[in-house]
Amino acid sequence: MYTELFTPSFYTVNIATNADSLATWLLPSIKPCLTQHKIIAHFHVDDQSETHLLMQTGLVNASISAEPRAMQGCIAQPLGEMRYRLVANPEFVNTWFSQGLTREALTHAPAIIYNNKDQLHSNLLLQHFGLSPACYPHHVIPSSSAFAEAIFMGLGFGLVPDHQIEQRLKTGQLIDLMPKLNIEITLYWHHWKQQALALDQLTQHLLQHASENMNGAIK
Amino acid sequence: MYTELFTPSFYTVNIATNADSLATWLLPSIKPCLTQHKIIAHFHVDDQSETHLLMQTGLVNASISAEPRAMQGCIAQPLGEMRYRLVANPEFVNTWFSQGLTREALTHAPAIIYNNKDQLHSNLLLQHFGLSPACYPHHVIPSSSAFAEAIFMGLGFGLVPDHQIEQRLKTGQLIDLMPKLNIEITLYWHHWKQQALALDQLTQHLLQHASENMNGAIK
Repeated sequence: MYTELFTPSFYTVNIATNADSLATWLLPSIKPCLTQHKIIAHFHVDDQSETHLLMQTGLVNASISAEPRAMQGCIAQPLGEMRYRLVANPEFVNTWFSQGLTREALTHAPAIIYNNKDQLHSNLLLQHFGLSPACYPHHVIPSSSAFAEAIFMGLGFGLVPDHQIEQRLKTGQLIDLMPKLNIEITLYWHHWKQQALALDQLTQHLLQHASENMNGAIK
Repeated sequence: MYTELFTPSFYTVNIATNADSLATWLLPSIKPCLTQHKIIAHFHVDDQSETHLLMQTGLVNASISAEPRAMQGCIAQPLGEMRYRLVANPEFVNTWFSQGLTREALTHAPAIIYNNKDQLHSNLLLQHFGLSPACYPHHVIPSSSAFAEAIFMGLGFGLVPDHQIEQRLKTGQLIDLMPKLNIEITLYWHHWKQQALALDQLTQHLLQHASENMNGAIK
C-alpha cells in the first residue's frame, strides 16, 4: 500500500466484500455517502472465509460477508438478502432443456460457475438432483459481469443475482429455470465496535440503504 | 479442481486472462467457437506477471497477456490492441476539473484504480504530471464492471477500456479528459506449440476474430 501524502480532506476506509456485491448493489448504495463525507474506499474482493482474517490482521476496517458471526470486538449487522435465480436464455433452454430441467439433461448441459469455491451452484444441483460438479460440464468464469454476460449470450446456464437480470426476465430474454426456487443470501456488515467517524457514517448509511438496492427493482 | 466424470463430448481448456479482457471482448469473441466445437473454458484471472508461471506449472493451457515474450516450447501471437481512455462524467468534471486537468486539480480529485498493481493509471499521472499515487486520493475497485460503473456514476475518474464506454462517449454521459492520449495495450495469445485439436481451433478463431471485438465499435 502507498503512504498517502495528498490533502487529508479525504478519509480512507478499507472494505472487504464478496465479488457479487461489488458488481451490483454496493457502489450505487454508498456513492452518496462517500461523496458527501469525502470517504475514499479501498475494496478487497475476497473469498468470504477470509473475512475474519482480513479484519484481524488490520488489512480492512470493515467487511460485507455472508458470515453471521462477529469477531471479538466487532459487530455483524444484517444488511439484507441477496436473491439469486437459475436462468438461461431461450435458445439455450430449447437446445438443452426441451424436455425440462431433468437430471439427465443436467449431466449434458454446460453450466457456468464463478470458481471452484462457488458452492451456491454445486449445492443446488447436489440437493435437488443428486449431482456433484464432476457429473456435469461447467465453464468457470471468475468475473461477475462476464459470468452474467456468458449466460445472457447462451454459453451456459447458472445462478445470477436478481440485480443483474431484472429487465431480461421481464422481456423474456432470460428464462427462470426453477421459478419456485428461493435462494436468498443474508449479507452482514462487520465492523469494529470502536471506529472512526467516517466508518460510523458509512455504517449508518449502509444499514439504511443497502437493502433498497440489493436486488434491483424486483419484488 | 474436480475430476470430470461427465460425458466426454466436451473438451476442457484452462485459460489465463487479464480481468479487462474477460469483462469485455473475450467471451463475445470466442462464444461461437466454444459452442461449435464443444469446448468448456475454465478461466483464471491473473496478474499478468503470473502468466508464465501458470503455463509452466500446467495450471493453464493458454493465456492472454500483455507479455510479448513466449516461454520455451510456446508461441505468443498478437491478438490486437486494447485501447483505454481517461474519462469522467460531466458533473465530476465540473466539480473537480473546471479549470482543466491541471496538476493541482489532480492532487485533489479522487481517481479510481483497479488495484495497487494497476500501473496504467499511475504511469500516466507520473509521466504527464509528475504525480505518484501517494500524491492523489484514489478509490481502489478490483472489479472491471464496478470500476467502470463507479466512473459512470461520478465517484471518480479513471482509465476505462473503449469497449465499455462507446455509447456514453457518444451521448456525452462521459467526457474524454485527454482526447490526444493514445493508450493501446497489445495483447498476446500464449499457447504450446504442441496442442490439442480444440486448442488449435480456439487459436485460429481468436487470431481471426479477437481484434474485431477488442474495442467495441469505436474506430
